[in-house]
Amino acid sequence: MYRTAVVFMGTALALSVHAWDALPATPPIPADNPMTPEKIELGKQLFFDPRFSSTGTVSCNTCHNLMLGGDDNRPVSMGVHGLTGPRNAPTVWNSAFHASQFWDGRAASLEEQAKGPVVAAVEMGMADLDKAIGRVRAIPGYRAAFARVFGGEQPVTVDNAAKAVAAFERTLITADSPYDRWAKGDAGAMTPQQIRGLSRFDQLGCTGCHQPPTFAGPHKPRGHFAVFPFHDGPYVEQFQLRQDKGRQAVTGREADHHKYKIPTLRNVALTAPYFHNGRVETLDQAVRVMAAVQLNERLPDADVADIVAFLQALSGEFPALTLPRLPPMVGAALPTE
Amino acid sequence: MYRTAVVFMGTALALSVHAWDALPATPPIPADNPMTPEKIELGKQLFFDPRFSSTGTVSCNTCHNLMLGGDDNRPVSMGVHGLTGPRNAPTVWNSAFHASQFWDGRAASLEEQAKGPVVAAVEMGMADLDKAIGRVRAIPGYRAAFARVFGGEQPVTVDNAAKAVAAFERTLITADSPYDRWAKGDAGAMTPQQIRGLSRFDQLGCTGCHQPPTFAGPHKPRGHFAVFPFHDGPYVEQFQLRQDKGRQAVTGREADHHKYKIPTLRNVALTAPYFHNGRVETLDQAVRVMAAVQLNERLPDADVADIVAFLQALSGEFPALTLPRLPPMVGAALPTE
Repeated sequence: MYRTAVVFMGTALALSVHAWDALPATPPIPADNPMTPEKIELGKQLFFDPRFSSTGTVSCNTCHNLMLGGDDNRPVSMGVHGLTGPRNAPTVWNSAFHASQFWDGRAASLEEQAKGPVVAAVEMGMADLDKAIGRVRAIPGYRAAFARVFGGEQPVTVDNAAKAVAAFERTLITADSPYDRWAKGDAGAMTPQQIRGLSRFDQLGCTGCHQPPTFAGPHKPRGHFAVFPFHDGPYVEQFQLRQDKGRQAVTGREADHHKYKIPTLRNVALTAPYFHNGRVETLDQAVRVMAAVQLNERLPDADVADIVAFLQALSGEFPALTLPRLPPMVGAALPTE
Repeated sequence: MYRTAVVFMGTALALSVHAWDALPATPPIPADNPMTPEKIELGKQLFFDPRFSSTGTVSCNTCHNLMLGGDDNRPVSMGVHGLTGPRNAPTVWNSAFHASQFWDGRAASLEEQAKGPVVAAVEMGMADLDKAIGRVRAIPGYRAAFARVFGGEQPVTVDNAAKAVAAFERTLITADSPYDRWAKGDAGAMTPQQIRGLSRFDQLGCTGCHQPPTFAGPHKPRGHFAVFPFHDGPYVEQFQLRQDKGRQAVTGREADHHKYKIPTLRNVALTAPYFHNGRVETLDQAVRVMAAVQLNERLPDADVADIVAFLQALSGEFPALTLPRLPPMVGAALPTE
């Protein structure tokens, strides 16, 4: 439903015509990958299984840790052999709502995204996807599970593995944050400071990019990415914000120089450190940096505190997850290095 | 209760005077570390939390993976920066029943064991335990949890962390294996081949070291360790079984040369590869090697198959575990390397 902040604030806010909607309980489900309990369970197993990385030590959950905020609390992620990549791991929680995946939006779906890290040299480090799926196929319990879920002559395929992982990821929704309860009409679910923060967040124009209910970029071809940093200033140098070409490295287009997918702010209080390079450790500082480099604003301390309080109201309820049992390797061992 | 295999086999077995007992539902609990639900939950969090390793990537669960057989399916474990140690990770499932911990028995308790890997350079790689507990203390949610569980002025201590982890580990029991159900009187819980295997296992003398109900070494000062390999033969060279000094490296005593703690065989079908150095990949081969180097026996194929079938009857029921929520780092990040 469309509401304006004025309803809750008691003061007129000229620009506030956003839908302060709560996060839906379920994300969009693609027609070619319907959800079934068996597929979700298989996807969960694959998500947590480290045996499909070159060393056998890195799983999806290593960098997108579901026990944490769906990330790894690191500036940049660490894969096999202690190697690190150039970017901060985005949270997997609520990623099913995004119109594309990765900081540069280079994957159009969760299915496509799931294949990337497996063969990234500094992440799971497999030589190719055939070798990775070969490891899956060598485990009898997985052969049986793929047959049950997908059927067909040769069900253990890269595409089917990606479908299972994506189906599991579509269950990773954190609804019922204080903001969501407020948006559904519980006026006391957010504190007065959090409501002030929401209002300031909106007035400043943050909602122009971080739109409710996901507080990520909207599902529009021209509205999904943003140039970051947009304005110059000391933070750009201090936090090395222009070392990375962003989406230009994918498209080659000058217009995509330093463009990034607009990330969700849900659970942002749990996913320090911040930005594509993870150079900013506190939410407080992240708010100041965003105001400066995107809006050319220098915020008073009180506004920063209010906005941080609001962002904390975006921490949702995490569904209880049972640890999967992983099917055993039978008469086999992982490589020694 | 004491039973002899003869009851179930229908043939007289002169040597079979073991108690074919089922695994107790609970292990011994030390008087100075009583179990409480809050302590167990804290221990579970610490067990799964990778942030107390030098790189922030290795937790207890990395090498003692509870989604697998409580180990890592590797010949030797891999810690920070892809470094590997000299020995195969023992399973943590049912480790609460053992009289000592580590392959060389150098820790007298789970509490003592828990501190070792944190500061092992090739495992979690922390410079010292003070630095590790400093990382725990820096996380507000842990400070609150330690205060609730242990109370006192400064509850976040290494000893308390070890107590919590040990309390959690004492819940990691896999009872109700086919063997256990058979031992409780369900004559059909094991197949005829598995019962033949049990009988052969006993007749050969395997139960001299691998004693029911844990199928590990007995709780006796002189019965808990064994020389391995005991006999010479081609397997010793083939699988490099004498490269490691075993317990001698701890005690310095000649009598402990190549002595190891007798490991449990519970869930052994799930914990390939085998032995202290993980050089043997199949259970089949492990049985042949044990017969040769410990008993100087060369087993017929049918006996090997029967014993392997029996060992598979030692795979228990794994309790469902809910994934813990780990308290967030607030305004902080893990180191970049």
